[in-house]
Amino acid sequence: MLNPYLLSDALLSSWLLEDAPTGDLTGLLLGLPERHGVLHFTARDAMCVCGSEEALRMGQLRGLTCAGTMVASGRTLQPGAPILSLSGPANELMVVWKMAQTLMEYLSGIASETAELVAQAQQQQPGVVVSCTRKHFPGIKAAAIKAILCGGAIPHRLGLSDSLLLFAEHRQFVPQLSPAELVQHYRRHSPERKLVVEVVTSAEALAWAQAGVDVLQLEKFSPVQIAALRAELEPLSRSPVIVAAGGIQRSNVRAYAASGADVLVTSAPYQAPPRDVQVRFTPMP
Amino acid sequence: MLNPYLLSDALLSSWLLEDAPTGDLTGLLLGLPERHGVLHFTARDAMCVCGSEEALRMGQLRGLTCAGTMVASGRTLQPGAPILSLSGPANELMVVWKMAQTLMEYLSGIASETAELVAQAQQQQPGVVVSCTRKHFPGIKAAAIKAILCGGAIPHRLGLSDSLLLFAEHRQFVPQLSPAELVQHYRRHSPERKLVVEVVTSAEALAWAQAGVDVLQLEKFSPVQIAALRAELEPLSRSPVIVAAGGIQRSNVRAYAASGADVLVTSAPYQAPPRDVQVRFTPMP
Amino acid sequence: MLNPYLLSDALLSSWLLEDAPTGDLTGLLLGLPERHGVLHFTARDAMCVCGSEEALRMGQLRGLTCAGTMVASGRTLQPGAPILSLSGPANELMVVWKMAQTLMEYLSGIASETAELVAQAQQQQPGVVVSCTRKHFPGIKAAAIKAILCGGAIPHRLGLSDSLLLFAEHRQFVPQLSPAELVQHYRRHSPERKLVVEVVTSAEALAWAQAGVDVLQLEKFSPVQIAALRAELEPLSRSPVIVAAGGIQRSNVRAYAASGADVLVTSAPYQAPPRDVQVRFTPMP
Amino acid sequence: MLNPYLLSDALLSSWLLEDAPTGDLTGLLLGLPERHGVLHFTARDAMCVCGSEEALRMGQLRGLTCAGTMVASGRTLQPGAPILSLSGPANELMVVWKMAQTLMEYLSGIASETAELVAQAQQQQPGVVVSCTRKHFPGIKAAAIKAILCGGAIPHRLGLSDSLLLFAEHRQFVPQLSPAELVQHYRRHSPERKLVVEVVTSAEALAWAQAGVDVLQLEKFSPVQIAALRAELEPLSRSPVIVAAGGIQRSNVRAYAASGADVLVTSAPYQAPPRDVQVRFTPMP
Amino acid sequence: MLNPYLLSDALLSSWLLEDAPTGDLTGLLLGLPERHGVLHFTARDAMCVCGSEEALRMGQLRGLTCAGTMVASGRTLQPGAPILSLSGPANELMVVWKMAQTLMEYLSGIASETAELVAQAQQQQPGVVVSCTRKHFPGIKAAAIKAILCGGAIPHRLGLSDSLLLFAEHRQFVPQLSPAELVQHYRRHSPERKLVVEVVTSAEALAWAQAGVDVLQLEKFSPVQIAALRAELEPLSRSPVIVAAGGIQRSNVRAYAASGADVLVTSAPYQAPPRDVQVRFTPMP
Amino acid sequence: MLNPYLLSDALLSSWLLEDAPTGDLTGLLLGLPERHGVLHFTARDAMCVCGSEEALRMGQLRGLTCAGTMVASGRTLQPGAPILSLSGPANELMVVWKMAQTLMEYLSGIASETAELVAQAQQQQPGVVVSCTRKHFPGIKAAAIKAILCGGAIPHRLGLSDSLLLFAEHRQFVPQLSPAELVQHYRRHSPERKLVVEVVTSAEALAWAQAGVDVLQLEKFSPVQIAALRAELEPLSRSPVIVAAGGIQRSNVRAYAASGADVLVTSAPYQAPPRDVQVRFTPMP
Repeated sequence: MLNPYLLSDALLSSWLLEDAPTGDLTGLLLGLPERHGVLHFTARDAMCVCGSEEALRMGQLRGLTCAGTMVASGRTLQPGAPILSLSGPANELMVVWKMAQTLMEYLSGIASETAELVAQAQQQQPGVVVSCTRKHFPGIKAAAIKAILCGGAIPHRLGLSDSLLLFAEHRQFVPQLSPAELVQHYRRHSPERKLVVEVVTSAEALAWAQAGVDVLQLEKFSPVQIAALRAELEPLSRSPVIVAAGGIQRSNVRAYAASGADVLVTSAPYQAPPRDVQVRFTPMP
Repeated sequence: MLNPYLLSDALLSSWLLEDAPTGDLTGLLLGLPERHGVLHFTARDAMCVCGSEEALRMGQLRGLTCAGTMVASGRTLQPGAPILSLSGPANELMVVWKMAQTLMEYLSGIASETAELVAQAQQQQPGVVVSCTRKHFPGIKAAAIKAILCGGAIPHRLGLSDSLLLFAEHRQFVPQLSPAELVQHYRRHSPERKLVVEVVTSAEALAWAQAGVDVLQLEKFSPVQIAALRAELEPLSRSPVIVAAGGIQRSNVRAYAASGADVLVTSAPYQAPPRDVQVRFTPMP
Repeated sequence: MLNPYLLSDALLSSWLLEDAPTGDLTGLLLGLPERHGVLHFTARDAMCVCGSEEALRMGQLRGLTCAGTMVASGRTLQPGAPILSLSGPANELMVVWKMAQTLMEYLSGIASETAELVAQAQQQQPGVVVSCTRKHFPGIKAAAIKAILCGGAIPHRLGLSDSLLLFAEHRQFVPQLSPAELVQHYRRHSPERKLVVEVVTSAEALAWAQAGVDVLQLEKFSPVQIAALRAELEPLSRSPVIVAAGGIQRSNVRAYAASGADVLVTSAPYQAPPRDVQVRFTPMP
Repeated sequence: MLNPYLLSDALLSSWLLEDAPTGDLTGLLLGLPERHGVLHFTARDAMCVCGSEEALRMGQLRGLTCAGTMVASGRTLQPGAPILSLSGPANELMVVWKMAQTLMEYLSGIASETAELVAQAQQQQPGVVVSCTRKHFPGIKAAAIKAILCGGAIPHRLGLSDSLLLFAEHRQFVPQLSPAELVQHYRRHSPERKLVVEVVTSAEALAWAQAGVDVLQLEKFSPVQIAALRAELEPLSRSPVIVAAGGIQRSNVRAYAASGADVLVTSAPYQAPPRDVQVRFTPMP
Repeated sequence: MLNPYLLSDALLSSWLLEDAPTGDLTGLLLGLPERHGVLHFTARDAMCVCGSEEALRMGQLRGLTCAGTMVASGRTLQPGAPILSLSGPANELMVVWKMAQTLMEYLSGIASETAELVAQAQQQQPGVVVSCTRKHFPGIKAAAIKAILCGGAIPHRLGLSDSLLLFAEHRQFVPQLSPAELVQHYRRHSPERKLVVEVVTSAEALAWAQAGVDVLQLEKFSPVQIAALRAELEPLSRSPVIVAAGGIQRSNVRAYAASGADVLVTSAPYQAPPRDVQVRFTPMP
Repeated sequence: MLNPYLLSDALLSSWLLEDAPTGDLTGLLLGLPERHGVLHFTARDAMCVCGSEEALRMGQLRGLTCAGTMVASGRTLQPGAPILSLSGPANELMVVWKMAQTLMEYLSGIASETAELVAQAQQQQPGVVVSCTRKHFPGIKAAAIKAILCGGAIPHRLGLSDSLLLFAEHRQFVPQLSPAELVQHYRRHSPERKLVVEVVTSAEALAWAQAGVDVLQLEKFSPVQIAALRAELEPLSRSPVIVAAGGIQRSNVRAYAASGADVLVTSAPYQAPPRDVQVRFTPMP
């Protein structure tokens, strides 16, 4: 998915200020505010690039301009491919340099790992969906979700306020209610949202499926367990969506895709290593 | 280092709001605002814990109170050790649960990886310093630095505005100035700060050492190259501090510590996997 | 629903500052900072009260304390019933007075109107759900949603990023795709969320129902049209949830509840008149 | 009054983010980031339009551009009249659509109601002033005041810190001071501001007028009571400005205008129903 | 005036973060997070103290507590008098130390200079008012106004949006309107506010006085010119309030007070030197 | 140094909003939103100008454009020299006028005083450095540092988190450690930063110099004492950088420069009187 949205100026500006509240001292002492140059970003690794729009916008917030092609987030790049060039006062180039580079490296890392997981899963099982959790570092949601969208995944749920995911921890507070009663309760009170229930055993899963839940989130089931459950659910007239969650990553994503789960929920891309972005400066006379 | 500082209420509050702008819908529909309970966090992995003060403070910002022991950031915990308990309305427990857990998992991951690198490096070479870069995800500086301090490292430089790190990219704009002239320039203009210069070859390193630079930052030198450089620098009357940077991580930290570098600069802890924190709820009657 | 969540300190503080950036000048010139008193809020109208927790918190942010009972949001009050008392320096009482009063009046107005709509709808048709739109004044989402939750409604969707509502305006950009293809597309790409489609004619509604959509949002259908559609949909093996939207308010809510719609979506509570909250000061000697 | 000022980027951006923190998911899944279109806003109702500059600015903050005429806030429009067109990536059009529409609907509702009250009052009594209170929803002052200015009213007082309005609640704390002493006190201490005193009976009003107050704010006086008071005040050498407040709205504004009050203070426009703004999309090939 | 209001947590917290985003490094490396102590602030100079509530609140925001007496803003202190003591972890004491000290020094400087100007003016002319401009450093309004209130002055006008001050620069845009027409215009459109007009010559002043303006702001008139004008205005039945502005400070405040002006407007306190506050630490065992 | 960096939009916007939350009422009532004009800023005093970029940016944030030359921060101007012209709607000119003027006056005051101190110091002793403290009004760091950089000084330390300055107040908590041990401690734990130690007597200074400290900060030493200390330090093989601090200002800066100190640390520029900037409006027909 190309360039799904742009992070806000307020966010980008706060990042720049955190890193350089009063400019680049090393360059200021060298007189760089009076020099001009161009800063080129290129892909060192192959990558699904992400964050180029934000890198450009950071530059604009410091008075820089785009100097040539800007590659949209979501494109696949080969090593050496240009991403973005920024032009302007040398000291502002210094201020933007590492923040723009680091942002693109982290986001491209997340996007590329997502794309890899999606590719492997869908080679195995074309229709399977990869969905990413909200277990990223606190406070970076907008950036993290942009990256996983670029990589071809969707957000599992953005937060607690606009979706229904019933944990055992919720159920502990209403032990008197059966699965059927709870399904009924949520269907009655929030018919526009699917009810997702997290379960940890096949027996639980079956009970909730029989109760008519919309989505079963299988926590730390093995692919074998999922396949077995799938078979058990087959006879049901209305089978729930099957979501596999817990520890899904590159090493096992094909097995989970083959297991019959409809959705693979993962946090793995958030720990993906950054993809290297190379920088080069060209001073202007 | 124990609990070096507390992240600000504004930051903690913004994290909670991003995740749950209007509360936990699943719990609200179940009537949880009228139930009470206790939420217990314990270490599932061994860890250098970090973020417990912030987890407690998040709870307080949602009207929860500490229910028993709170373990300070920086302590080493064994699997199963309690970290924090929070008590209050069940729906606020739900709002705080994952944010507090995720924060402690990420920060304890960074702190523990830092502690591991420090331990390995100092076993090899007692006096060596581990110093962490500013290449964390943008916007999380205060949290990341708290974690690396808890793990026993120090920040390399917090940003661009209060230290001097001269890159080749700066020097490109003043090609007419020799190392001696640049050292002289910075010593004259900012005598209260050390001048750090990044170099990529031994020849460069020697030239700058002879010019009298305070700190040499060796970018992607191998341990062998560093040891060789160290020997070459020995005859100098006033040898610079030697900083090794680029790719230092668990697999090579001992070799770098043995190389003779004074400081090992690394970004590795920022990519450390989160350390698992377990949660358990106890409903109150 | 009682006291679903508390608005953030940052929000409450910004409201107080907008109204009194440098205190209450009238009182400052009178020497009120050296006097103390108690400020009592009581219900003048009958109401489903909302915002009392925030009124108390505003007081605390100005150094005031609770002086006696605090009635939780969501309670039904008779005229004259006490809501909250605040105690402290007279000038801070002046600063908090109108902001706290105005907030409780607006929120209690929204909550009470919601409760009225819910009561009328459910008297007519016990299982029907009232769901409120995001068409409140920009920027007040957290407060508005708290109020409609207190009144017994649920949020229709909090925003654009975590639910699927397909408008004709979206479909204009992909005219080549049939309802069946679009339903298939969303089911494949986001199986954890229900697909809601807005339609304006019965023919459209039928086509989408046959295509298997999860939820039909009927825009400005009359109750008669809804009842007719409902009958036409009956033979379908898997009938969608029926949502009525557009102009639903007190004068017609019973008719819509009787029409067979499962959910009544309304913005009417956001325009409800504020419910009067009375204030009384007691100076302390 | 035309386009009195523009709301800040920070405010507009926060509104967009609250509604769409990670874009329009429905459109993202449809590939809309790669499509372009134009979004047209037109007046469905007759209206005194307000908020068009902010709607345009919201668009610009999301990378959209003005596509043709932009009608300034404060103009009177007939049904069907164009207000604004925005052009750009289809998914950003989706993000801006409802926020821009809702803002213009609310603000045009306030501005139009204000204009109606002003027109009726001034037909009755050409010189009378309509002045609006600070009893709008907390936190929306800048927007609300823009709208009432566009409609021809002025703000009564923006807040507590830069004007003098003495309530009985203040006077309770200094019961020993007579009206004459209080007038004298404020005239001595703040001679650059008029002293406004709120009164609830004619006797009080007369006492304060004799004491020399600048402005009498008559709380919930009937038009008849105001006219009677006016007559009683006539003999005074220096008669105060007479402000009528409390419950003034369309149904009685002419009577109040005829009563002899100089200023009619009202909160009615803040509860005015939004004026409908119609939207239409034109996809670009 | 004692302790007129408290600056907001958000403001105080942002100041602390700007100065110590990741704590006091010098103390962290020394292990101070594990030590405790008390920090005492005392007046080195005589002063009208201001900012002590904010200093305490800064401490509380960092986990410190009040250790003994806290002297309210607005009190007059002799050299050596205690102001505030804070107790807690040594490293947090270090973080709060200079910010609290600097804030109290600046604010006490402004408050004390204000008090001095007020004292001199009122010794000369008991009823004269000292009023301070908005020409403080941008962004510090709430703090600056608190300080001048503590010193016995009032704010001239907080900003542009809630008072009327007609400059020649405004009049340039409506050259066709006479003073009488302008006075009439503002009296008709904003009868609740006094109209202040800035004039630079006595002729202008007389013309506006005859036109019935409420307040004349005499820009850079000498005391002699003011006295002469005052005499010329005497015969008028309704004489305006006379405000002297421009260059009023300690060296001439008595002369201006004696000139017959009702109000002396000054920016001088904002440039007053800070009053020294002394600090002393007591380590706890 | 020319135009070292631009303050952030968020900061500039917050300043404008604080001063004019709902525009310039005086101008709004006069119909100025429909008039246009140009606002010219010129230097009344000679000055090292600072803040012109921010003044322009404030204008742009209110829809104004640059009308001709813009003089970069850091230039030396003669009385009467143009600085900046802004063009656009008259009411926005009114909103920007005083904030832009006041900002440039304060910052040019700081920059000019800094430049004067630097010039005097360096005439006396060419190589001496002037360095400014963090004792500016809280919250204005970015602006204050820009100004002192423009004037030719450098920041002493931006805050507590990225430099080492050991006070007696720190040492009180570790009385058991000798200077040699402390120097060793910091050299071991933070070899990339110089250790600065504040001392108040020559004996202390000598002890720390012998212990090998990098920088001695002499608190309130007279120039004579500094010269004497300098002589005593001469025999040391590796003499520390000598920083003089405490009360350095115009009246004594030459004496301090002659004393042999390497760095003169001062807060004096922050109390410098603003430099007058003159404004002139040209209405457009």
